[in-house]
Amino acid sequence: MRDKIQQAAQALAPRLVAWRRDFHRYPEAGWTEFRTAALVAATLQRLGYTVKLGPAAVAAADMMGVPAPQELAAHMDRAVRQGADPALVARMQGGLTGLVADLPCGDGPTVALRFDLDANDIDEAEDDKHRPARYGFASQNAGAMHACGHDGHIAMGLGVAEILAGLRPGLAGTLRLIFQPGEEGSRGARAMVGASAVDGVDHILGGHIGFQATRTGQLICATGKFLATTKYDVRYSGVPAHAGAAPEEGKNALLAAAAAALNLHAIARHGQGATRITVGTLTAGQGRNIIPATARYKMETRGETSELDEYMAAEARRIIAAAAQMYGVACEITQVGGTKSGESSPAMRDLVKSAAAAIGFFSQIDDYASFGATEDYSHFMSVVQQRGGSGTYFMLGSDLAAGHHSNYFDFDEAVLAPGVELMATCAARLLKRK
Amino acid sequence: MRDKIQQAAQALAPRLVAWRRDFHRYPEAGWTEFRTAALVAATLQRLGYTVKLGPAAVAAADMMGVPAPQELAAHMDRAVRQGADPALVARMQGGLTGLVADLPCGDGPTVALRFDLDANDIDEAEDDKHRPARYGFASQNAGAMHACGHDGHIAMGLGVAEILAGLRPGLAGTLRLIFQPGEEGSRGARAMVGASAVDGVDHILGGHIGFQATRTGQLICATGKFLATTKYDVRYSGVPAHAGAAPEEGKNALLAAAAAALNLHAIARHGQGATRITVGTLTAGQGRNIIPATARYKMETRGETSELDEYMAAEARRIIAAAAQMYGVACEITQVGGTKSGESSPAMRDLVKSAAAAIGFFSQIDDYASFGATEDYSHFMSVVQQRGGSGTYFMLGSDLAAGHHSNYFDFDEAVLAPGVELMATCAARLLKRK
Amino acid sequence: MRDKIQQAAQALAPRLVAWRRDFHRYPEAGWTEFRTAALVAATLQRLGYTVKLGPAAVAAADMMGVPAPQELAAHMDRAVRQGADPALVARMQGGLTGLVADLPCGDGPTVALRFDLDANDIDEAEDDKHRPARYGFASQNAGAMHACGHDGHIAMGLGVAEILAGLRPGLAGTLRLIFQPGEEGSRGARAMVGASAVDGVDHILGGHIGFQATRTGQLICATGKFLATTKYDVRYSGVPAHAGAAPEEGKNALLAAAAAALNLHAIARHGQGATRITVGTLTAGQGRNIIPATARYKMETRGETSELDEYMAAEARRIIAAAAQMYGVACEITQVGGTKSGESSPAMRDLVKSAAAAIGFFSQIDDYASFGATEDYSHFMSVVQQRGGSGTYFMLGSDLAAGHHSNYFDFDEAVLAPGVELMATCAARLLKRK
Amino acid sequence: MRDKIQQAAQALAPRLVAWRRDFHRYPEAGWTEFRTAALVAATLQRLGYTVKLGPAAVAAADMMGVPAPQELAAHMDRAVRQGADPALVARMQGGLTGLVADLPCGDGPTVALRFDLDANDIDEAEDDKHRPARYGFASQNAGAMHACGHDGHIAMGLGVAEILAGLRPGLAGTLRLIFQPGEEGSRGARAMVGASAVDGVDHILGGHIGFQATRTGQLICATGKFLATTKYDVRYSGVPAHAGAAPEEGKNALLAAAAAALNLHAIARHGQGATRITVGTLTAGQGRNIIPATARYKMETRGETSELDEYMAAEARRIIAAAAQMYGVACEITQVGGTKSGESSPAMRDLVKSAAAAIGFFSQIDDYASFGATEDYSHFMSVVQQRGGSGTYFMLGSDLAAGHHSNYFDFDEAVLAPGVELMATCAARLLKRK
Repeated sequence: MRDKIQQAAQALAPRLVAWRRDFHRYPEAGWTEFRTAALVAATLQRLGYTVKLGPAAVAAADMMGVPAPQELAAHMDRAVRQGADPALVARMQGGLTGLVADLPCGDGPTVALRFDLDANDIDEAEDDKHRPARYGFASQNAGAMHACGHDGHIAMGLGVAEILAGLRPGLAGTLRLIFQPGEEGSRGARAMVGASAVDGVDHILGGHIGFQATRTGQLICATGKFLATTKYDVRYSGVPAHAGAAPEEGKNALLAAAAAALNLHAIARHGQGATRITVGTLTAGQGRNIIPATARYKMETRGETSELDEYMAAEARRIIAAAAQMYGVACEITQVGGTKSGESSPAMRDLVKSAAAAIGFFSQIDDYASFGATEDYSHFMSVVQQRGGSGTYFMLGSDLAAGHHSNYFDFDEAVLAPGVELMATCAARLLKRK
Repeated sequence: MRDKIQQAAQALAPRLVAWRRDFHRYPEAGWTEFRTAALVAATLQRLGYTVKLGPAAVAAADMMGVPAPQELAAHMDRAVRQGADPALVARMQGGLTGLVADLPCGDGPTVALRFDLDANDIDEAEDDKHRPARYGFASQNAGAMHACGHDGHIAMGLGVAEILAGLRPGLAGTLRLIFQPGEEGSRGARAMVGASAVDGVDHILGGHIGFQATRTGQLICATGKFLATTKYDVRYSGVPAHAGAAPEEGKNALLAAAAAALNLHAIARHGQGATRITVGTLTAGQGRNIIPATARYKMETRGETSELDEYMAAEARRIIAAAAQMYGVACEITQVGGTKSGESSPAMRDLVKSAAAAIGFFSQIDDYASFGATEDYSHFMSVVQQRGGSGTYFMLGSDLAAGHHSNYFDFDEAVLAPGVELMATCAARLLKRK
Repeated sequence: MRDKIQQAAQALAPRLVAWRRDFHRYPEAGWTEFRTAALVAATLQRLGYTVKLGPAAVAAADMMGVPAPQELAAHMDRAVRQGADPALVARMQGGLTGLVADLPCGDGPTVALRFDLDANDIDEAEDDKHRPARYGFASQNAGAMHACGHDGHIAMGLGVAEILAGLRPGLAGTLRLIFQPGEEGSRGARAMVGASAVDGVDHILGGHIGFQATRTGQLICATGKFLATTKYDVRYSGVPAHAGAAPEEGKNALLAAAAAALNLHAIARHGQGATRITVGTLTAGQGRNIIPATARYKMETRGETSELDEYMAAEARRIIAAAAQMYGVACEITQVGGTKSGESSPAMRDLVKSAAAAIGFFSQIDDYASFGATEDYSHFMSVVQQRGGSGTYFMLGSDLAAGHHSNYFDFDEAVLAPGVELMATCAARLLKRK
Repeated sequence: MRDKIQQAAQALAPRLVAWRRDFHRYPEAGWTEFRTAALVAATLQRLGYTVKLGPAAVAAADMMGVPAPQELAAHMDRAVRQGADPALVARMQGGLTGLVADLPCGDGPTVALRFDLDANDIDEAEDDKHRPARYGFASQNAGAMHACGHDGHIAMGLGVAEILAGLRPGLAGTLRLIFQPGEEGSRGARAMVGASAVDGVDHILGGHIGFQATRTGQLICATGKFLATTKYDVRYSGVPAHAGAAPEEGKNALLAAAAAALNLHAIARHGQGATRITVGTLTAGQGRNIIPATARYKMETRGETSELDEYMAAEARRIIAAAAQMYGVACEITQVGGTKSGESSPAMRDLVKSAAAAIGFFSQIDDYASFGATEDYSHFMSVVQQRGGSGTYFMLGSDLAAGHHSNYFDFDEAVLAPGVELMATCAARLLKRK
């Protein structure tokens, strides 16, 4: 089977590049991946997968940080204009842009592979220094850019799907492909878990191009120290008043937000591990001489474990409310993101390591790296683990043109085929018919 | 009658000085004026006044800022040791050290004169530069000193009492002498009003040695712009924790108090007039490396009117509670003082002015001064005025050795007899039998 | 002369309304009054006034709160499109949109009348309830509206100019008409004073439609308690950093601004009179998970006197800088507005009162009102007074459709002719040839 | 040699208890260990050690958190009254209460053993539940108590000194005993390092009764994650003013301290590891109605590494100064403590482990524990390591009557002899003559 996979992966290489560049050209931000998801769904249906889309894949009640209806509608229109099947797009009404595709192969374990669909809110570089611009596949969608490699991940997902569909007779169990929206902002995993995306999953595998694996040929087999995170939008509503004539009639939302910001950052450090708190943006007030009646801020907490993050989030909620009380203003807290912490399973790490060793491409294979930041994947993985399953997250090294989230970000497309081979090999071993 | 009063006042001069020096030697702070009140009560009873003492003069439920029971007991003992009648002292159990003395003279108006009994929490200067030390009448009670002239006020009260008792046949109505405890800290008036001290009062007169009347011979006939005030003691109780090992287990009372202090001072100014807010003292924490579990602070608000003060106090109460909530600590607010704003009545001002003009002593007679600070008298006066009566507050100029509340404070005793003459004359005119 | 003025004013009434409606249709905000000032300049030149425009009337170095060059250029283009003389507009390059027009009449005092040119940053109501919409003279300039009556003031200025030019032979001295830009935001007076606009002025007169004079027929002859004010824009520049991976590398401008806001509002109240402080708007940060590297806020101080305002402004400057230091961010403070306090002169009040009494129109003539807010006029007036001159500010009562600065604001045009008569009469009396 | 040490240690057991109880009876806080150090010095001199005391052992310039001269003088008097040799006490003038005792044994390595002399600021429990009280060896010095086991450490130090002096002929190199003052508050090590206490030291060994080794029979051979710490006392000096009459004249030290406390706690967490910040105590103000002119607070920072602690301390210093500037008050920062982070050396851990295995007493021998708090020992150890040496810190398990720093703290004296045996064995092995 190993040879088959290798040959298939190498044969796929040009199409992986073509897919990747197509997705790169039409980037879509979180909850607006209508075109991307529709193309993926159509391809997987053709390959024989059972595809769940829209409400079957995403629980609307658990969605966080969803754009306004008008904005969603505009993105649906754009997706159709840019080639998506209108019928499929229509099924994702409300931004339900995730999909779960199963390849049932009889009795056996369920193995999930996860890919992320969304782009970043960045204007892509347009000069010739930047290969996507030079080669003509730079973003056609203003304000959006695949600057984190998710375009490559999706392409690999399609490649893996095709290879494993071809191996179906030799497999036992269920292969599940999870394509999630809204990885950025940690918004999508919770809603897909809410729609049963990882129910019954025994093993889960995900990965990322780049990060701590800094050059082409390097592979890190397992990742840990994913930070848990909680993201809130807060709005304070007070009462305006003339600042000269009757300041006492105002209820000052700006000062409430200022008090909240300072005291949020003063939440006590935790003796059990690392935590974070950031009020990242704040906007308040209408005019210089009016007691400010409105304030909005975006904040997030993080924790080395989900428990540490919940400590921070609980403290934050109390402080946010108390700051409102302090200035007599109304307070509205909306959770717009959040994911669990995570740590890869040793057994899955060993599987990746052994699979990678058999692939000539990798010149440096490392066991482990500490992530130290947030990846929505850890939400899927920790749920699988809590239910008795296992998982890991690899980093697929690539020479990068610029750092993640830079407008000059670009990766080495030579890693796509080995990445496909790696994932297909791991899945095939877990699903091997005995 | 004018001549009689003048002669009597002049004859009293040496005894006024003796009284003043006796009170000066044995100063007693607010709610501990056991010796002072007992001596005054005994004297007035001898003169034929109907004297109400203890619960009849002070409503325990309305007392603010009362010392602890042990402290009160110690002061009762001291009062007896320093010559007070034990039976009278016993009637003031609980710190009820106010007295109301009536001289009923048949049908007619009720005229109240008010005097204040308490001393300051100051160690008196002991060197020979200071006349009370040089002449041997400096404070015998450590930590207490008559540094505001109340000793002189009490002496004048006894003098006025004696003169008017002698004029009784020519009077119609009721003369009421109010001797209040706890003027400092604005604690006594409310509790005496609560015990009906000004019920039925048609006119009220009070005054003070010094302040804006800066030299012997000057008299100011009316005072206004008494600031209303509210005084709170606040205590926060949190949870201690080791600051290195488990800071998250603490509930930080020090930070709650810090947040309260900053935000209290940020209460919006009021478009309708002057307000004040001060957190005057703050004490928090047990040790450098323990999350501080306790904090206590003393604060006050003020307002140009009672309404403005209540605006400040209401804002303060909300902020104090919100700061506690912000850090998850328990909060206890105790009101320890408070008085109303006040403005003298023009008719009473004119009465004082006309009486003063007839007394040779005053070389400069001014209509009015703005007080710009707090006097517990304004609480009595504003209640009388609200019920349809009138009142004024004069300032009896005196050369001073040092400013009010200085440990070198001393006034010119030559002003005592003219002060007695002035008050007796005003009262006699209002009560004159027709 | 009185009859002449009255007849002339009544004859002018229809033209006053026409002028007012023209200005209303083309409102221009502070420092962009190119069309308005050009029309006024052309009219006054025709009437024989010596007109100073641009740098001769406005000191560029003293201008505060000036729009960006591109914005000014766009407004200059619009002014020409809306009928202004391009040559005149060109002279106001840089936003120097004030003008000073003198009518020299030989030896005698210099009497200044002041009018304000600018509109508000408001979208005017467009429904038929609103008379300007119904009658077709609502604003043609999006985002701008004469919602404070300055359109009426300018019309009166032209009317007064015409009448007094006709009386020139009977006058002695110099009549000076000051048309100032940027009254809103207290930006224009300082720059015109800097260009000598009130040099040599012996008497100054200004006024306003509405405010405390709430109905047609009422006149208030003098106004006081103009608050002094200082307006700052503050910008903090820090260093961004990833909030999860390396928060310690950031320099947090948002927290610096939050600390500044709280501590600015905690500036101690002043014992000598009313003060104000407001941080009216605050914008900070780029994204939820980035340590915020930028913050901007708009603030103002006010004081019952210029000294009180300077106390507040000096405290504010120290706090603004200290908050920057606290978070290690750079700080840039720009003064964008500011004016002095003011109090009308009794002699000028009496002149207005006597002039008004002779005009049948006024059914209620009051001596004085306290303004309790800010008017850039007080800057002119206080400079004139400091140099030995006198001034007053009247309020010309009018029935209003809605309050000042409302998008439904409209006044009773019947007050325009009496207003012209009043101002012309006062000026004529002061300049009367003996 | 092993048997000799074991026999000697067992024979010493009663004297170890006697020594411990004597030190327990006369506890002395940091920099006042005059009696304790004098007794230790006298004993070591008798045993043939070369003893450096006072300035030879402690660098005055590097001392932190030293009591006032009067207080030191009183403690010197007490030490003499309680049996110390006046000549030795005199040599420790200024609180220089550390000592370094060398036993030179020819060529070979220098091996340092470190013991801590100081007691805690605690009133010892007096009831019979508490063994020291029941047996009559409770503290005779009010406000001081050996509540951390240092009394046991000193007794062990004397025991080790006696045993190794007896083995001198078999040793090669130098044995150095370091008795440090002021371990509590992290004050003593830096000043002894400043006086060359660890110059030339190749190996250093220290330990503690209790902590993570929670029961008699347990031993932890190495300890790490000592937090670095910096301790500051801060004083703000402002200007008092009457809070009602002239609040603007004050410079508010209380608000400066409140602003400092909040913003200190908001110092950004560090991506490289754990940090701590605590303002533990705060005292400000004189009276309720006086703008507070003074504030004092005690604070500390900590870091998982010395670099992390220095990040915190540097941030803190900037914020402390900025808060002073914010309120226009003067600021005085005094460092009163500070120590480096530390991690034990594996080789020394193995030495302790091997020595312990040979002692029958230990039923549970663990390799390592993470300290997670501060011990001044880590300052000595990290300096030795930086210079190429090695060190470890063991925890000698003991059943405790109550937790460290409790007023009921007491340990199991049965651990003293095994502790002596362990340390003597380790030193003897390192110094063994070949």
